[in-house]
Amino acid sequence: MSTYHGSVLTLSVFGQSHGPAVGAVLDGLPAGFRVDREALARFLQRRAPGRSALSTARAEPDEAEFLGGLADDTTCGAPLAVMIRNINQNPQDYDNLPLRPAHADFTAAQKYGGYEDRAGGGCFSGRLTAPLCAVGGVCLQMLEGRGIRVFAHAASVGEIDDARFDPLSPQPPAGSDLPVLDAECGNAMREAIAAVKAAGDSLGGTVECAVTGLPAGLGGPLFDGLEGSIARLLFGIPAVKGVEFGSGFGGSRLRGSENNDPFVLRDGAVVTASNNHGGILGGISSGMPLLLRAAFKPTPSISLPQRTVELSSMEETVLELHGRHDPCVVPRAVPCVEAAVAVAVLDALLAHQTDDFFFGGRT
Amino acid sequence: MSTYHGSVLTLSVFGQSHGPAVGAVLDGLPAGFRVDREALARFLQRRAPGRSALSTARAEPDEAEFLGGLADDTTCGAPLAVMIRNINQNPQDYDNLPLRPAHADFTAAQKYGGYEDRAGGGCFSGRLTAPLCAVGGVCLQMLEGRGIRVFAHAASVGEIDDARFDPLSPQPPAGSDLPVLDAECGNAMREAIAAVKAAGDSLGGTVECAVTGLPAGLGGPLFDGLEGSIARLLFGIPAVKGVEFGSGFGGSRLRGSENNDPFVLRDGAVVTASNNHGGILGGISSGMPLLLRAAFKPTPSISLPQRTVELSSMEETVLELHGRHDPCVVPRAVPCVEAAVAVAVLDALLAHQTDDFFFGGRT
Amino acid sequence: MSTYHGSVLTLSVFGQSHGPAVGAVLDGLPAGFRVDREALARFLQRRAPGRSALSTARAEPDEAEFLGGLADDTTCGAPLAVMIRNINQNPQDYDNLPLRPAHADFTAAQKYGGYEDRAGGGCFSGRLTAPLCAVGGVCLQMLEGRGIRVFAHAASVGEIDDARFDPLSPQPPAGSDLPVLDAECGNAMREAIAAVKAAGDSLGGTVECAVTGLPAGLGGPLFDGLEGSIARLLFGIPAVKGVEFGSGFGGSRLRGSENNDPFVLRDGAVVTASNNHGGILGGISSGMPLLLRAAFKPTPSISLPQRTVELSSMEETVLELHGRHDPCVVPRAVPCVEAAVAVAVLDALLAHQTDDFFFGGRT
Amino acid sequence: MSTYHGSVLTLSVFGQSHGPAVGAVLDGLPAGFRVDREALARFLQRRAPGRSALSTARAEPDEAEFLGGLADDTTCGAPLAVMIRNINQNPQDYDNLPLRPAHADFTAAQKYGGYEDRAGGGCFSGRLTAPLCAVGGVCLQMLEGRGIRVFAHAASVGEIDDARFDPLSPQPPAGSDLPVLDAECGNAMREAIAAVKAAGDSLGGTVECAVTGLPAGLGGPLFDGLEGSIARLLFGIPAVKGVEFGSGFGGSRLRGSENNDPFVLRDGAVVTASNNHGGILGGISSGMPLLLRAAFKPTPSISLPQRTVELSSMEETVLELHGRHDPCVVPRAVPCVEAAVAVAVLDALLAHQTDDFFFGGRT
Repeated sequence: MSTYHGSVLTLSVFGQSHGPAVGAVLDGLPAGFRVDREALARFLQRRAPGRSALSTARAEPDEAEFLGGLADDTTCGAPLAVMIRNINQNPQDYDNLPLRPAHADFTAAQKYGGYEDRAGGGCFSGRLTAPLCAVGGVCLQMLEGRGIRVFAHAASVGEIDDARFDPLSPQPPAGSDLPVLDAECGNAMREAIAAVKAAGDSLGGTVECAVTGLPAGLGGPLFDGLEGSIARLLFGIPAVKGVEFGSGFGGSRLRGSENNDPFVLRDGAVVTASNNHGGILGGISSGMPLLLRAAFKPTPSISLPQRTVELSSMEETVLELHGRHDPCVVPRAVPCVEAAVAVAVLDALLAHQTDDFFFGGRT
Repeated sequence: MSTYHGSVLTLSVFGQSHGPAVGAVLDGLPAGFRVDREALARFLQRRAPGRSALSTARAEPDEAEFLGGLADDTTCGAPLAVMIRNINQNPQDYDNLPLRPAHADFTAAQKYGGYEDRAGGGCFSGRLTAPLCAVGGVCLQMLEGRGIRVFAHAASVGEIDDARFDPLSPQPPAGSDLPVLDAECGNAMREAIAAVKAAGDSLGGTVECAVTGLPAGLGGPLFDGLEGSIARLLFGIPAVKGVEFGSGFGGSRLRGSENNDPFVLRDGAVVTASNNHGGILGGISSGMPLLLRAAFKPTPSISLPQRTVELSSMEETVLELHGRHDPCVVPRAVPCVEAAVAVAVLDALLAHQTDDFFFGGRT
Repeated sequence: MSTYHGSVLTLSVFGQSHGPAVGAVLDGLPAGFRVDREALARFLQRRAPGRSALSTARAEPDEAEFLGGLADDTTCGAPLAVMIRNINQNPQDYDNLPLRPAHADFTAAQKYGGYEDRAGGGCFSGRLTAPLCAVGGVCLQMLEGRGIRVFAHAASVGEIDDARFDPLSPQPPAGSDLPVLDAECGNAMREAIAAVKAAGDSLGGTVECAVTGLPAGLGGPLFDGLEGSIARLLFGIPAVKGVEFGSGFGGSRLRGSENNDPFVLRDGAVVTASNNHGGILGGISSGMPLLLRAAFKPTPSISLPQRTVELSSMEETVLELHGRHDPCVVPRAVPCVEAAVAVAVLDALLAHQTDDFFFGGRT
Repeated sequence: MSTYHGSVLTLSVFGQSHGPAVGAVLDGLPAGFRVDREALARFLQRRAPGRSALSTARAEPDEAEFLGGLADDTTCGAPLAVMIRNINQNPQDYDNLPLRPAHADFTAAQKYGGYEDRAGGGCFSGRLTAPLCAVGGVCLQMLEGRGIRVFAHAASVGEIDDARFDPLSPQPPAGSDLPVLDAECGNAMREAIAAVKAAGDSLGGTVECAVTGLPAGLGGPLFDGLEGSIARLLFGIPAVKGVEFGSGFGGSRLRGSENNDPFVLRDGAVVTASNNHGGILGGISSGMPLLLRAAFKPTPSISLPQRTVELSSMEETVLELHGRHDPCVVPRAVPCVEAAVAVAVLDALLAHQTDDFFFGGRT
């Protein structure tokens, strides 16, 4: 299933890369929030293809049409339904291709018995992140209305590492098409991407994301933990192969005395003096900035010759791809991570509304 | 919620560390599987406390009583319900403790308004992994009956790294209380754990897990991907702060030409020549070994003095803990990872039974 | 939420009566089924408005556009997504209307705080059954491919009762715009509908539905029972206020010796000699025809003057509606019931594929 | 699956009639509610067997042990887990029985392939309503704390009809073992039950349930309607074959001008002058009393000889049952209906807490 079942929100993403459209239905949003359509369009442009030398040449306007859920641009309680037409379709580019390494061609054929939509990866395409960004972009606005900000940057591209967020006070990155904290790193990343593009190769990287202004008390124990729900959404983004929170894998090499974050009082409130826990303890937000990193594998599509198998004839062959691909997914992945995290955080925030049912005096 | 909603299986884990019992209900298991109760008891002993110098001194027999789901030790279609009595309870150990750093004390208080069960971490305790292992242990047996093996080892303890699984042909590790691939590493880990224990400190580490014999075609696109469902269960284990599949974070630093796994024919079947994808492409199993790593933070409970806050008085203080704690969770975490992965994989295998509904020829 | 969470299938219905479109996403359908688009269009025409004197004058072509889930008209494993444009919109008809009795105007305002889409009932409109019929129509075809037929008839309109299905061998009704078993009853129903229309009034009625060819073993105990899952979908159809299976409310007045269905052998198979259980025992299909009835309230919209309240001024007033309404929903409700039942039954059939996982020999 | 997935609450019921125990896990309850254990015990006694001449002679103390979810009898946020030991087990009573008509014996065998727990109906037994009542009884207390009362009465036993609730102002019935509105009817029902018991036969009946004090705005459109969620839980009670709300099946025979409930002002609030809608419009509570009826089939177990089939030999035979059975389930079903409705209503009330997220000024 392509459906995310959150605590309050249910997200269904639909469509195929070269089908009529891609889209999403987000059910469970409360009524009464006015969507800023222009801000949303700007957010979608950050993910849209064909905007810069960093991305694929496939040009798609990526205009989101809302089919339901809004009245006068304001949420009306009905499910938010969005559709983005596929314009620049070339399904024939994918006819008779042998298995593309690191793509879902082989596994989809195993699951769907040859009935899968093969054109452009079908429902496995990164294009499915367009509707994720459309509904996630609305969630971002809703969170901002509550003083909660979600922002991410390209933490690494290949071997080039950007600076890390200040764990106690992360600041939004500069730049729109390749958001980084250190402009020098950004330039080096651009050069590296240009170089692999010229070489017919590709690069992976990581995205670091922060959530600030988050109240304490969101999430829950065990399978309701924020880490698990955020991770489930992040792993829904094609090419994500790792997710870590706070000190993550690095923290696993530390001692407790190093990794534990002391509680201290600041302005009469309990905070932690450091933030190795990444804003989550016991699966529940602590009120400190939420910090995570997602690892993206290198773009599978490269022009260099690759050994592979032609499934219909069951013969080994060599594949040389000449389509339109991103040499590195990280630049366009940054808003996708923000969108996925926003859905998970808004879901937890909505679920949190019932927590004080018996002691908060709400009627 | 403490419930995992899989595709076919629903898992509810219940209980608190110092309450009457911990337990689990696993709904959706097909009828007709005979549980090997002795093998299950041995599996539970791998997680049980008080077995070795590596773990807490809290002695719990951890005998699983099945309350439902079995008739003559065979699954009967009713939900599998298991209960493990808490015997060695010392709830008063936790009276009037200030906030324990890196524990859920503070966040639970924010969520539950002071009504949370504070004794021993309540429902946030690692003790909740006992029922996870009980039902996960049954899933492991079910998978084994299909030729699918799930096994894990202590991949690192602090700065000490065990060998990695052979990605193309992982072999089960030796050792029961601290499974490792390289016995020398195991000895070094034991020494390191003994050292931090003596120092009143603790260590983190990582667990690497492999699944072999898995057919291709399990999982699905987007939010139905195997990575997401496995990660959600893994993050349900207390102390897990990172999860990666295949080359994971390391792979994000590679080029596509390095990270892509070529398809080749072997014995007439399509396989990959390398396994950076960790057995999952497009969220779907490829038939290659599934490989993942989970990062565990150092045990939060340490005897060294720690700065913290006393919540009732809202005053800063210093905490010195003198309870019974694991100096490193990794040894006991190994079977927990196996159990969580087994639940996710069995769920995907059961869901897979419908994939060929229209084209037959199921494997 | 407007989402149905089945065992295998998830159905999200979206859109508002006078918004851009209505639609649905049905996730979980296996790949490899070729949809008969013409048969589906015919099925949708049975529900479409403006076809006969029995229904509203609102003319909507109700052409279903599939946005995802098909490749060459064959299910490809991706979620089935369908959109039906709203053409004949008159949202201004609903400006400044006082509360319409028996509609959702008042309750929606209580839930959504005035932000609900009021035009034509918004997401509470019977128009939302169009996408239900689109995806349900596909499910009907899938079931037919397995020899399972779902058909319904107008069992009563007002005080006029059609014949009942033969419980042991129900046969599909004749007629397309008002399917009945007894043509005389059909004529009487038409006259009654014409009479209330002329009087500015409306009628309720019941729909009886049968499922034949259903294998035994679908469904499950407690909350997984077929009755519960079918009822949940049926109550999703606006105006349904009652659902009963087999002898239902009538059976509650009988003795066990009258209501119990004896088991007998027929052609070497176990069947029941009567069918008061309506094909379901213990929530599980028995292999006998599944039989149910759904009660529809009279169309709330009538032209006769009605006492009501104007919510903005909080004053009592009298409402005279002059829009386009069905004098009786039953004729168009018949295919809606078939569609809802088809979704529930296909879901149960798919879930059934895992039942024999451990003992094989599946049918 | 035996799990109910509500909007906020997840309910897993486990156990078999003659297994070690029956129980339930209710996940999603907020922390901070003190359970009145004595009142709960009294509520459970209303359902417990062996209390009066009206019910089975199987004596079960039905003491609920809470395994999780409480600290000092107060909900602590962890899942509420309850266990009720089976004491009076006679599994051998069920050895070698031929198929019992109207029971789940045959359908369970079809689904579970002969691995089902046959003793006493296994997981299909009415005994599974004991844990439903335990957790539902807690929900009833929680609702009462909010001024919401749920109460039911025996609306009919066989052909004997009790009075109906006043739809505008239903009052709790008198009597504990057979709650009725009209004491004369109660006496007639007792006599009828005694008569069928003496005749070795059984009776069905209906239970009418009311919910008062319910705020407007609970529930939602389509598959989130209160009717659907309540019905799903009610059909989870063994023997329920029909559910109707408000005027229900009777209302389907009326005209709109008769069935529509006019809105009027009373004490400055919008109410309806009649209550044919049973407190639900568009799937959402209107603030008027919620009214429903559930139809129970006659107890399947009767002592009179019945034609049936012996499944192992596939031969027709005659069954004479001499176990311990309720001659009519209605008396004990009354609290079960209250419990099921309470779970659904509390779930909707909790979900309602997020409705005003954007317009209610809650932080």
